[in-house]
Amino acid sequence: MSSSTATLTNHQVRLARRPEGSPKREDWSFTTEPAGEPAEGGVLVQTLSLSLDPAMRGWMNEGKSYIPPVELGAVMRAGGVGRVAASRNPAFAVGDIVYGTLGVQEYCLVAQDDIKRTGLVKIDLRAGTIGQWLNVLGMPGMTAYFGLMDIGLPKGGETVVVSGAAGAVGQTVGQLAKIKGCRVVGIAGGAAKCDWVVKELGFDACIDYKAGPAAVRDGLKAHCPRGVDIYFDNVGGEILDAVLAKLARGARIIICGAISQYNNTTPVQGPKNYLSLLVNRARMQGMVVFDYADRYHVAIAEMAGYLKEGRMSSREDVVEGGVAAFPEALLKLFTGENFGKLVLKIAD
Amino acid sequence: MSSSTATLTNHQVRLARRPEGSPKREDWSFTTEPAGEPAEGGVLVQTLSLSLDPAMRGWMNEGKSYIPPVELGAVMRAGGVGRVAASRNPAFAVGDIVYGTLGVQEYCLVAQDDIKRTGLVKIDLRAGTIGQWLNVLGMPGMTAYFGLMDIGLPKGGETVVVSGAAGAVGQTVGQLAKIKGCRVVGIAGGAAKCDWVVKELGFDACIDYKAGPAAVRDGLKAHCPRGVDIYFDNVGGEILDAVLAKLARGARIIICGAISQYNNTTPVQGPKNYLSLLVNRARMQGMVVFDYADRYHVAIAEMAGYLKEGRMSSREDVVEGGVAAFPEALLKLFTGENFGKLVLKIAD
Repeated sequence: MSSSTATLTNHQVRLARRPEGSPKREDWSFTTEPAGEPAEGGVLVQTLSLSLDPAMRGWMNEGKSYIPPVELGAVMRAGGVGRVAASRNPAFAVGDIVYGTLGVQEYCLVAQDDIKRTGLVKIDLRAGTIGQWLNVLGMPGMTAYFGLMDIGLPKGGETVVVSGAAGAVGQTVGQLAKIKGCRVVGIAGGAAKCDWVVKELGFDACIDYKAGPAAVRDGLKAHCPRGVDIYFDNVGGEILDAVLAKLARGARIIICGAISQYNNTTPVQGPKNYLSLLVNRARMQGMVVFDYADRYHVAIAEMAGYLKEGRMSSREDVVEGGVAAFPEALLKLFTGENFGKLVLKIAD
Repeated sequence: MSSSTATLTNHQVRLARRPEGSPKREDWSFTTEPAGEPAEGGVLVQTLSLSLDPAMRGWMNEGKSYIPPVELGAVMRAGGVGRVAASRNPAFAVGDIVYGTLGVQEYCLVAQDDIKRTGLVKIDLRAGTIGQWLNVLGMPGMTAYFGLMDIGLPKGGETVVVSGAAGAVGQTVGQLAKIKGCRVVGIAGGAAKCDWVVKELGFDACIDYKAGPAAVRDGLKAHCPRGVDIYFDNVGGEILDAVLAKLARGARIIICGAISQYNNTTPVQGPKNYLSLLVNRARMQGMVVFDYADRYHVAIAEMAGYLKEGRMSSREDVVEGGVAAFPEALLKLFTGENFGKLVLKIAD
């Protein structure tokens, strides 16, 4: 099952130092190594596309979190889709398309003992494109599904608000909430994203947070006359506070992320309206998608069905340029420049 | 059933203006009226003791909350225990001891239509003293019971932390958590309160938050080696942030109050460590005790049993001096000067 890969070159991006604030070019180092050949039981995967996610910023920081930080000098952690280039493992054949934590590099050599840790699994491109496997059928989609369904517990007729509505997680949260019979209001940056969210994804409304200092407050007032039953928070900061001020009785807030705070060099801005939880008997709950790994297959099957039936769309923002483009591409997430799930294309 | 009350005088404390920050003497007005006589179906109650609670500060502010604010010029809202002085209602006899929202006044005339709104119910002094009926068998006890049991969902062996541990709600939270098999760590102000919480109430430890700037952080580290499974928060502010930094996986935070923030003239301090909810898959949930009114009798029966069996103690801090002492007495809550449930004695 093995083909010679001894002559292949692997370009890599490594974490050179821990960024302060927004990651800079100098926080990365660029290395070149032979791709290597798998030992008995191992696999060599050629990276095709990498998922670029807000959570990556947290992995660069020192200290305890839900997973260990990326070590200095290590290849930057990234999930991605690849093609098996060489295999000495009967479960993987050359040419198989796989998902796994491949890292920001052109080739990922996975030893037999590391296959589980790398999360290497075969995927079926008949269920979705590579972009969709990194989006609605991948980690963002799983995050949306389990956050909304298991923590949000949506009921028909409830009002669901989602920030980062045009982003990877937000687009699926909103579409899924619509399918479940909710009224859905997005929050996104700029008229183009808001238009797309309403016209293409079918949200009931979308608030442009860049439209002025009171845009979110006024938008919530206009579009959520009975308050907010579920808020899926990807951004934190001022927007979280604005939504807290509009909670309905018994509301549920899913804390999925806080992208507005990730590059802070000052302390995180705590939600000063958190006592709205008391007044409204509401709850705020954090989630980490990996906890639901045993049930990914259920969510994938359900959402692949929605894609096939045309009840769900997905949008990816694909950056070309290979691993060298990684540092610049990542910043698009924090400026809000990306439109859809951000994907870095490494090879065809 | 009626006796003449035409000649009785009723001293009252009314809200004269909305306080900024800590309530001042000038925020109150003092009025004298005839106590009056009940009309058909009504009751006149002589106030014996009033409950002084942190929540009162919120009732003085304008604006929407879980109950309407006290109107300017109205008698200040307060729960209390009284004795029926005159009755034209067959459900109440002269001499009956009752609990209800009597207000800061010596007599409360309740018309038939207002009996339900006033929450007037007969209480049995064989189950507990007047002080206990305002404490463990009253609103603080109900808050402790339903907050801990319904939202905290304690399991044997878990670590429960409670702030305001020597206060009305905190003392019952901790003792109940001990009865349910938890390890309990209190947070209170000063060595005397901490000693009492450990020696008299049987908490496993109590952290003196006044012992230095790192006292809470260091105390949590020492006494919660496996993290905090349940945090019952009565105080907010820095202490909430310190506990957030020590959450165990799957922790539950009950937001019962935030006394450190109630007299703020600047915005509430939001919990800057709230992303610990995400990392630890934890939740933070607000509660209002009135939602559990249908089940008060269950909690009262259970806790009266613990009192009788000597498995639970209670401590009240009784201020003498009648309604005139109300403005000063209330401030003890915010300085932390009270030691136990704060009660204002109005009559014998």
